Amino acid sequence: MYQTGDVRKQAQAAKTATIELSLLKSDVKARILLAMAEGILAEKETILTANAKDMEHGKEHGLKASFLDRLLLTEDRLKGIAEGLRQVAALPDPVGEILSGCTRPNGLTITKVRVPIGLIGIIYEARPNVTADAVALCIRSGNAVILKGGSEALASNKAMSDVLIRAGEKEGLPQGAVQFVNTSDRGAVDELIHLDKLVDVVIPRGSKGLIQTVVKNASVPVIETGAGVCHTYVDEYANVDMAVEIAYNAKVNRPSTCNAMETLLVHKNIADKFMPKMLAKYQEAKVTIIGDEPTQKFGQDIQPATEEDWATEYGDLRLSVKIVDSMAEAIAHIRKYSTGHSEAIVTDNYENARAFQSLVDAAAVYVNASTRFTDGFEFGFGAEIGISTQKLHARGPMALPELTTVKYLINGNGQIRK
Amino acid sequence: MYQTGDVRKQAQAAKTATIELSLLKSDVKARILLAMAEGILAEKETILTANAKDMEHGKEHGLKASFLDRLLLTEDRLKGIAEGLRQVAALPDPVGEILSGCTRPNGLTITKVRVPIGLIGIIYEARPNVTADAVALCIRSGNAVILKGGSEALASNKAMSDVLIRAGEKEGLPQGAVQFVNTSDRGAVDELIHLDKLVDVVIPRGSKGLIQTVVKNASVPVIETGAGVCHTYVDEYANVDMAVEIAYNAKVNRPSTCNAMETLLVHKNIADKFMPKMLAKYQEAKVTIIGDEPTQKFGQDIQPATEEDWATEYGDLRLSVKIVDSMAEAIAHIRKYSTGHSEAIVTDNYENARAFQSLVDAAAVYVNASTRFTDGFEFGFGAEIGISTQKLHARGPMALPELTTVKYLINGNGQIRK
Repeated sequence: MYQTGDVRKQAQAAKTATIELSLLKSDVKARILLAMAEGILAEKETILTANAKDMEHGKEHGLKASFLDRLLLTEDRLKGIAEGLRQVAALPDPVGEILSGCTRPNGLTITKVRVPIGLIGIIYEARPNVTADAVALCIRSGNAVILKGGSEALASNKAMSDVLIRAGEKEGLPQGAVQFVNTSDRGAVDELIHLDKLVDVVIPRGSKGLIQTVVKNASVPVIETGAGVCHTYVDEYANVDMAVEIAYNAKVNRPSTCNAMETLLVHKNIADKFMPKMLAKYQEAKVTIIGDEPTQKFGQDIQPATEEDWATEYGDLRLSVKIVDSMAEAIAHIRKYSTGHSEAIVTDNYENARAFQSLVDAAAVYVNASTRFTDGFEFGFGAEIGISTQKLHARGPMALPELTTVKYLINGNGQIRK
Repeated sequence: MYQTGDVRKQAQAAKTATIELSLLKSDVKARILLAMAEGILAEKETILTANAKDMEHGKEHGLKASFLDRLLLTEDRLKGIAEGLRQVAALPDPVGEILSGCTRPNGLTITKVRVPIGLIGIIYEARPNVTADAVALCIRSGNAVILKGGSEALASNKAMSDVLIRAGEKEGLPQGAVQFVNTSDRGAVDELIHLDKLVDVVIPRGSKGLIQTVVKNASVPVIETGAGVCHTYVDEYANVDMAVEIAYNAKVNRPSTCNAMETLLVHKNIADKFMPKMLAKYQEAKVTIIGDEPTQKFGQDIQPATEEDWATEYGDLRLSVKIVDSMAEAIAHIRKYSTGHSEAIVTDNYENARAFQSLVDAAAVYVNASTRFTDGFEFGFGAEIGISTQKLHARGPMALPELTTVKYLINGNGQIRK
């Protein structure tokens, strides 16, 4: 049974490990991750047995099929997870990178170098693969990690983290560096997000509800991830066929993701050409359309969009559509309702493309491409711990460099200040 | 009279200005700052008259001489402030800098570019020069700013900001971009630090009390600055004369600053040679020494240091001293009590220098130099808005780049995600 103070003890053990972790050589960290990958395959039965328990429990409690699918582990999925660990092992180590420096007139040399942040808390939900992902990214970047997963995946996550720790320690993972909070008690989350001076940052991963709870209540620093009310604006100068393909992809490809589109903005001068094609295509995919008055003229069953609709991240096959008089109106709409995640314009007009990209304030601003590309892998980072929708520290997809901070090293030979 | 909602209105006006501000060309921003410098000199009488009012009020209310000195403006000080504005005008504009980018296999180009953060709140105390400094740094980096100064300097700050706005607007400063909160009502601070989604970050500048109040209570993002329990460790392999000079400078040069030393750690093997010279020198400067038992053997009037002493930022001519058995003990002490600001070792031993710099977790880690150099100007940044003692977003002296965030621009020709 969880008792207040348990998480603090785990965090203290992890914090102690940060010293050794920060000194680990790059190849040792890579070997630890490779050993973890091996461990997952070697002990797959243990993990799958634990997962079967979670699945059974989930079915008994009537969890949705989509939820159970996220929870499910199979031999193939474990192979994928192991491959993910190997990929992170192969990424360049950000720690020790010298970012800039100078020699001052008084002879002092000042060097700005990347160092690990320290102890990172990850609070997540159903997917047990996050356990391995988070451990890989934190350890590769020299950080200790404390994991608090969803209660529905408790057995799976516990088995997975046990395997990772066992395998990692054989290759030099410092004791205590990876901590798994083995409880479903909600008090544990509350304790974790209040461990000031011990936990350097918490990154919540999962539903909007989870993220907002952590952001609102934490006293430790938090990186907010994943809120995505994303727009695609079809400019009057858009290539209609390209616009249809992009807007279709942005909504339909994987509607549950944070980089999927929620609102389509269409310039009135192109609406007559664009809307019938677009709506026919959405109909094939069974997308429910709601919209403003001008939009409703393009279909009998289009319900009116409310003020709330414009601000909602549906996460499913529901789309709000607005016909605008100008690009300025589109941008004003985006400024009002965007969560600053990903926004796109489809246009063949050079000036409009440039203006849209400079006027829209978001982590990722696209011209003639689907917002679905906002992702650490699609951006070529080789990994992703989340997509930051805040402006401080990190913005957009976060990978290894975003799990580091800096330190100034100043070397002299007796300099004192006048 | 201040009414709840007043600050929100000001922040909304400033937020509106952020769009235009983010588009201002570099030379326009520079001209705005130069005009502000001119304005200060041209309207010096207005500012000095307002300052005389604050000074009189301060004397009536029995403010300390040191406080009144910080509050005082003179013609010379105004010239210095104007010169500061000109220097910031001459600094490279961080906005628009392309930090990295790539072309992906699918043909998408991804460009990471620096953009302004948006609206920055500055909460500060007695020094009216902060008004001009903060405006210069925020405007140069394309940000709007909302200023809340100390009540003792209200008239001075109001006069200064009026002059800056008037002069700036002649050269294209967008209306509303600089907001001064013209009240002594404490409710205004409380309102400012709770303007979520409107104020992008608040930077408190001033006493520890002010900073902690803001950090603890704000719901908007805060950058914590300035807490400095800084140590100097005199290694057994130190050059004794150099160590005396550095430790003297770190304590005595300007004890009220955050980069001044509070605790001196001395290796036992060098104590007999080092301590008598050091204490004699501190005596000249009337430094009060407190210390652990071994330290007390070096002077009759050395009082014992308490647990609280080790964690205290004195900010005056008071110093706690500890004799340690090893570098490891010194580092452990620093880990326990440091605020992560600036730490120094004095040594001629190469391995110890390297080990100290990698094992000590602080914004600035020195070898053979005074901690007093942690400062934006001394680091060659040409400016400083504060010294961050947190690990996220910015660490150490913050100048223009630290007042920016990033944005990814993604350009394609119809790419959709598979």
